Amino acid sequence: MVERFSAVEVIVAKRDGRALTDAQIDWVIDAYTRGAVADEQMSALAMAIVLNGMSRHEISRWTSAMIASGERMDFSGLHRPTVDKHSTGGVGDKITLPLAPLVAACGAAVPQLSGRGLGHTGGTLDKLESIPGWRASLSNEEMLAQLRDVGAVVCAAGDGLAPADKKLYALRDVTGTVEAIPLIASSIMSKKIAEGASALVLDVKTGSGAFMKDPELARELARTMVELGNDAGVHTTALITAMDVPLGRTAGNAIEVAESLEVLAGGGPSDVRELTVVLARTMLDAVGLDRVDPADALDDGRAMDAWKSMIRAQGGDPDAPLPHANESHVVHAARDGVVTRLDAYGVGMAAWRLGAGRARKEDPVQAGAGVRWHVTQGEHVRAGQTLATLYTDTPELFPAALADLSSALVVGDPADAVEALPLVVDRIGG
Amino acid sequence: MVERFSAVEVIVAKRDGRALTDAQIDWVIDAYTRGAVADEQMSALAMAIVLNGMSRHEISRWTSAMIASGERMDFSGLHRPTVDKHSTGGVGDKITLPLAPLVAACGAAVPQLSGRGLGHTGGTLDKLESIPGWRASLSNEEMLAQLRDVGAVVCAAGDGLAPADKKLYALRDVTGTVEAIPLIASSIMSKKIAEGASALVLDVKTGSGAFMKDPELARELARTMVELGNDAGVHTTALITAMDVPLGRTAGNAIEVAESLEVLAGGGPSDVRELTVVLARTMLDAVGLDRVDPADALDDGRAMDAWKSMIRAQGGDPDAPLPHANESHVVHAARDGVVTRLDAYGVGMAAWRLGAGRARKEDPVQAGAGVRWHVTQGEHVRAGQTLATLYTDTPELFPAALADLSSALVVGDPADAVEALPLVVDRIGG
Repeated sequence: MVERFSAVEVIVAKRDGRALTDAQIDWVIDAYTRGAVADEQMSALAMAIVLNGMSRHEISRWTSAMIASGERMDFSGLHRPTVDKHSTGGVGDKITLPLAPLVAACGAAVPQLSGRGLGHTGGTLDKLESIPGWRASLSNEEMLAQLRDVGAVVCAAGDGLAPADKKLYALRDVTGTVEAIPLIASSIMSKKIAEGASALVLDVKTGSGAFMKDPELARELARTMVELGNDAGVHTTALITAMDVPLGRTAGNAIEVAESLEVLAGGGPSDVRELTVVLARTMLDAVGLDRVDPADALDDGRAMDAWKSMIRAQGGDPDAPLPHANESHVVHAARDGVVTRLDAYGVGMAAWRLGAGRARKEDPVQAGAGVRWHVTQGEHVRAGQTLATLYTDTPELFPAALADLSSALVVGDPADAVEALPLVVDRIGG
Repeated sequence: MVERFSAVEVIVAKRDGRALTDAQIDWVIDAYTRGAVADEQMSALAMAIVLNGMSRHEISRWTSAMIASGERMDFSGLHRPTVDKHSTGGVGDKITLPLAPLVAACGAAVPQLSGRGLGHTGGTLDKLESIPGWRASLSNEEMLAQLRDVGAVVCAAGDGLAPADKKLYALRDVTGTVEAIPLIASSIMSKKIAEGASALVLDVKTGSGAFMKDPELARELARTMVELGNDAGVHTTALITAMDVPLGRTAGNAIEVAESLEVLAGGGPSDVRELTVVLARTMLDAVGLDRVDPADALDDGRAMDAWKSMIRAQGGDPDAPLPHANESHVVHAARDGVVTRLDAYGVGMAAWRLGAGRARKEDPVQAGAGVRWHVTQGEHVRAGQTLATLYTDTPELFPAALADLSSALVVGDPADAVEALPLVVDRIGG
């Protein structure tokens, strides 16, 4: 095949601060997908994009080219409106687990393609895989059938969806080119638009435990993604939510499933329930289902029924006992005082070190590993009171996790107590 | 082996505008050379360096790390002082051919490691390979013996010299990361310092036919390289020389050897002779041989004798007829007037298109291909007068080369004539 451009010409254009043309973007994404542009060329281009940026038009074209690299799903044959959620990732963020069956129970269909964890944030699929028998891989036909029969599916994205993004995401991960709004926004939105839902709600995290620690950058990312979604005909709303403090009381895999079950049973930590209901409300509004109350569906058992159906449809046993770690270690308060710090990033790192997360994509995770914190920020504690419990199958990992936790969970003087931020910081679009 | 750093950590530091530490630089160059840092990681780092720069200290350490990746030659056992020259590359730049034997004839030893052409500039080795029998590859022992016996050697750099640079140079070539002073300066100087000459003269070209078209950037590159050389104990001087107009009257391979022979016989185009003598003077001064006059050695045949010895020592027959192209095409003046434009870049591109240069490193070159211009900038011409002759073995290449030449060699009104710049624009160090 005669190439329309040379890779160097496209790289040099962006390196020198010029906008890429539509034809250059279409070509480079296609050529990279089929291997005519090499990894070392794409990573140089990605770094030039990180440092020199892309215009709104370039980002939109880049996203379209990544969608065009693969198949596009079509849910128009379903009798319910489809709506999806995406979180940019946080510590203890198990919201997808109660949310997908809850929204299905309220009448929408939720085709939720999820990922695995990398670094200090956990992955929805890793959490669900701690349920005996549950499998993450479904064919498109299985996914469609489950959406029709159950209304909710949480599974891994197939290889056919935005393969350019799959390849580019793996490359960015090892080349220091993850942190750039054009690349993050186009990566997320190419998959979400190709996935074919008619509406999308984005949960963009900001704070120490988020990838976008700066709220202004989180807002810019949210605005960019909302524009990309709406331009592609997907009704898109973004919530900016706080991720300075971890969500709920647990970070790990099976222990987050257990916490999600508490929420599905009408209880659970108040912040997890609150965010689940706010996101469900936003998703239902986006598809016109504004008369149903998601809080009711949590309290009357409909959400739990949908959960059980969803888990069974993917081979899981919702009533089987969840796995637990072989070893645990309890952390006690050394003094009377107030929890002056409960830092999402540090808690996430501790859970990661205990085996709940992975350092490399190919690493396994431990189903039972993780951290449970028994106190929240601002809470008064007594010397000797239990602050946290660490779980792992490999107790030699305790010291490193304890080191992370000791600076992430701090008991101090009441005068130093910091008030927690509201959970929902801002809303864009919708 | 447990790695001291992660590649991503080093890339992110430079991406975010921080200076790399000595330990990071030493590690990343070593790890790249042995394959622990992948091409796609090094190209992302190279792009971050192109866009965020490196401090003088970082460049110096980067250069040292590349030298340390391989062997270092040692000429201290020779009974003559060693001095080398490096040109950043221009069109018609055959100066190494007469210069190396000339400086040897004046009493110094010249260990000249040269390269092949890529793009619109020719390569010294490609030119010399048009001499029947001549070979570019020598062992270190052969090189040392020839320096002792003849005083001059022009050959390819062995694989042992700065292997990190060899690998990085090939990577930069395909990833749009060539044009950055820190990377250019460290690439050139790592090889030249490892080569072990006690003095070095740099010919930094500026103008349309040079890589550094902007004279200010050429000065900055020259200053950077002079500092690197002097810091490493190599007495280093740089001349900034004009490359708006091509050097001499020929651009190609065998035809540039023929022109060099004219200079070695005491004649030749005045600009080629002038630059050869100025560079020889600078090289001889750098090693204290300030009483010999290189012009004398050109006029009395000593330089020609050294040339013949040098060619014979590398298997070549200095008296054999040079190859010539099968086809030629003459360009005539369409009008009376003055040569208002003789553009180095356009002439170089025409020679390249005729087969004198290569598009990819693995392509062969044609020994006989090239361009001869019979007029110089500012010269008065008559309609019908011969302006240029094009040579190639593949006459279907004439039209493309003629298109380049027609905008590079222009006859206009005497009022539009531009005065040529002085050949030597500036001098740094020495």
